[in-house]
Amino acid sequence: MAKKSPSTAKPSTISAARKSRDDRTQKQIADLASRVAKTAFTGKEPVLHIPTRSRANTIWNKQRRILEMGDARQDRQLFNLNQAKQFMQTMLHCSTIMDLIQEGKTSSLRGVFYKAKHTVAGTKENTFDTQEESDPILEDLEVTLGALREELHIYAKKKGTMIGNITIVDSGDEIDCRRMGSGGYAIPSIVEPDVIQFKKCEAKFVLHVEKDTVWGRFNEDRFWQEHNCILTEGGGQPSRGVRRLLQRLNKELGLPIYCLLDCDPWGHYIFSVIKQGSISLAFESERLAIPDAKFIGVRAKDYDECDLGDAVKIDLSDQDIKRAKEIAAYPWFAAHKGWQKEIQGMLNNGFKMEVEAMINKGISYVTEEYVPQRLRSKDWLE
Amino acid sequence: MAKKSPSTAKPSTISAARKSRDDRTQKQIADLASRVAKTAFTGKEPVLHIPTRSRANTIWNKQRRILEMGDARQDRQLFNLNQAKQFMQTMLHCSTIMDLIQEGKTSSLRGVFYKAKHTVAGTKENTFDTQEESDPILEDLEVTLGALREELHIYAKKKGTMIGNITIVDSGDEIDCRRMGSGGYAIPSIVEPDVIQFKKCEAKFVLHVEKDTVWGRFNEDRFWQEHNCILTEGGGQPSRGVRRLLQRLNKELGLPIYCLLDCDPWGHYIFSVIKQGSISLAFESERLAIPDAKFIGVRAKDYDECDLGDAVKIDLSDQDIKRAKEIAAYPWFAAHKGWQKEIQGMLNNGFKMEVEAMINKGISYVTEEYVPQRLRSKDWLE
Repeated sequence: MAKKSPSTAKPSTISAARKSRDDRTQKQIADLASRVAKTAFTGKEPVLHIPTRSRANTIWNKQRRILEMGDARQDRQLFNLNQAKQFMQTMLHCSTIMDLIQEGKTSSLRGVFYKAKHTVAGTKENTFDTQEESDPILEDLEVTLGALREELHIYAKKKGTMIGNITIVDSGDEIDCRRMGSGGYAIPSIVEPDVIQFKKCEAKFVLHVEKDTVWGRFNEDRFWQEHNCILTEGGGQPSRGVRRLLQRLNKELGLPIYCLLDCDPWGHYIFSVIKQGSISLAFESERLAIPDAKFIGVRAKDYDECDLGDAVKIDLSDQDIKRAKEIAAYPWFAAHKGWQKEIQGMLNNGFKMEVEAMINKGISYVTEEYVPQRLRSKDWLE
Repeated sequence: MAKKSPSTAKPSTISAARKSRDDRTQKQIADLASRVAKTAFTGKEPVLHIPTRSRANTIWNKQRRILEMGDARQDRQLFNLNQAKQFMQTMLHCSTIMDLIQEGKTSSLRGVFYKAKHTVAGTKENTFDTQEESDPILEDLEVTLGALREELHIYAKKKGTMIGNITIVDSGDEIDCRRMGSGGYAIPSIVEPDVIQFKKCEAKFVLHVEKDTVWGRFNEDRFWQEHNCILTEGGGQPSRGVRRLLQRLNKELGLPIYCLLDCDPWGHYIFSVIKQGSISLAFESERLAIPDAKFIGVRAKDYDECDLGDAVKIDLSDQDIKRAKEIAAYPWFAAHKGWQKEIQGMLNNGFKMEVEAMINKGISYVTEEYVPQRLRSKDWLE
């Protein structure tokens, strides 16, 4: 496995990178605003052209092995009763983002909602009633401006932790992930190169597990030390921050990403999102997807192969069966014999299995036998 | 504010402390088991006496200002069709805990459930069907043995992060919380003195905020540096780990704990739990409650006093109103004029307000004006 040397960017280079990123985003917003203004002054109707974030406009790029957004666009017109409110909302958020960038600050999705929320003067109409109205407008802005949420200075809820044989620099602070105790380093929402740099990394791979409780088992057993790796968890479906960090570890340091997830449709879906991207964030795949991520378990065959015992079984519900069939039909899984067999195997079993169920074979069976054996025999699904 | 010097326990002292704790827990379990066995051998029915974890058996200790568990107990009999299963479940969990302690390992609540889950030989009956059956049995064991979950080597989901002017030692690793970037130190589930020691602390107080997104704002503005404090968040209702850590910072280092929570029944409830303990964990109050915790906001009066503007308002639902009245009737709030006025103020307003809504007054209004002003004028609710 080719290992690249970690980035050793200097602080001055980093702040220059951030400034040029901010300049670009500001210019994009200013261009959008002046197009609207110009159109208005010439007496024409201002229109925004917004790329469509829908399943129908999501394309599976077989060669790059990621989900991508197609070319479909929709108009958002100011003089259209159904669209005028969203048009205004888009402009309001542009204004908040300009403020954030100018002040060199970031804000949460909820903060941005509150910043823009007010009652329109002389009416009883609110600019926004709920955050559910606000978040999609921000996603629209991301695709329209071709700028990511992180570039718009907006962060989401923080999720996930990391520990292992790597030193990173986060906002100027050097953090030795080899010495992070039982708690670990909390992965922030924005992990772009101007926030986080990789400094020293001996690790040969990343083990990503679904839940923090499983992470706890691996950390307590010092798995990352024994196997020279980095250990991450995403608290279920990993956030953009966690996915982006994994992708950077993969792309920039050349580390393989092994995922240890439950043998159930939710585990398969999490893997699918890590590997190929998601429909709702297809415009982000390039920055988030990890086409060569590997699924090392739990596998449907493990019940027999590892002699796991009946206690690990949880019956598949009708909903699970429906979901499993949907996932099997995703183009990247549909074309993959191994995955067809895996999902069919789970359906034939009639039950799902969680990573934590392996405690049945011994408290540290999963860290001392299961994962090491899978790594040794390169037994995983791509 | 009296500041005590941080603990400087040596590793040998720490491992001795852990060993003596483990010895005590093992003895308690062994005693319980031998009582059951002895009774059975004398031909009598084995019975467990389990302290009752119910609202009716929860007492408000006015002098100590914490919730405590009363003396009521319930019998769990082996030869009672309604109780036999729970009796067996209790014994199974005892056995798992013995294994964990003997191996010097910890496990998650879900892990312990799986460890005990199996089909009883010769029947189609499972020892446990769901984790919902398992968790209360573990709580029963805590109160019966007089040992905490952490002493039983069991951990829960990890939540919450910390940053600020303190160095801690977690499992032998020295962690400088002054240099934890934008992510922070992830607070583990078990934070007992044999896992986490406080090493060097200049901080004069702790600011605890409800949400990680608010924490992000305070961290980005380096509030903890400017005001010489520690900054924590609990991801909503803080976990036992976070509450215990706050209590230790308060008790051992003498740091006041200021809570910045939403002005809504949920925020008031979170404060109540941090300060006095909760009904379901009343047996834990001594170790978790912080009777002199302070609520610095958001306050009902802030709408007028801080001129917050209509955008911050979220109408109280019928459910909110009902909940607010319940909370106002809690004995510690009922006897507190300030809190009666506060909750009535919110009801009179007819709306709730979130910390994040203050962005309306400026991106950093909450960190640069609101909280510093409240601290300066000692304007808080006890």
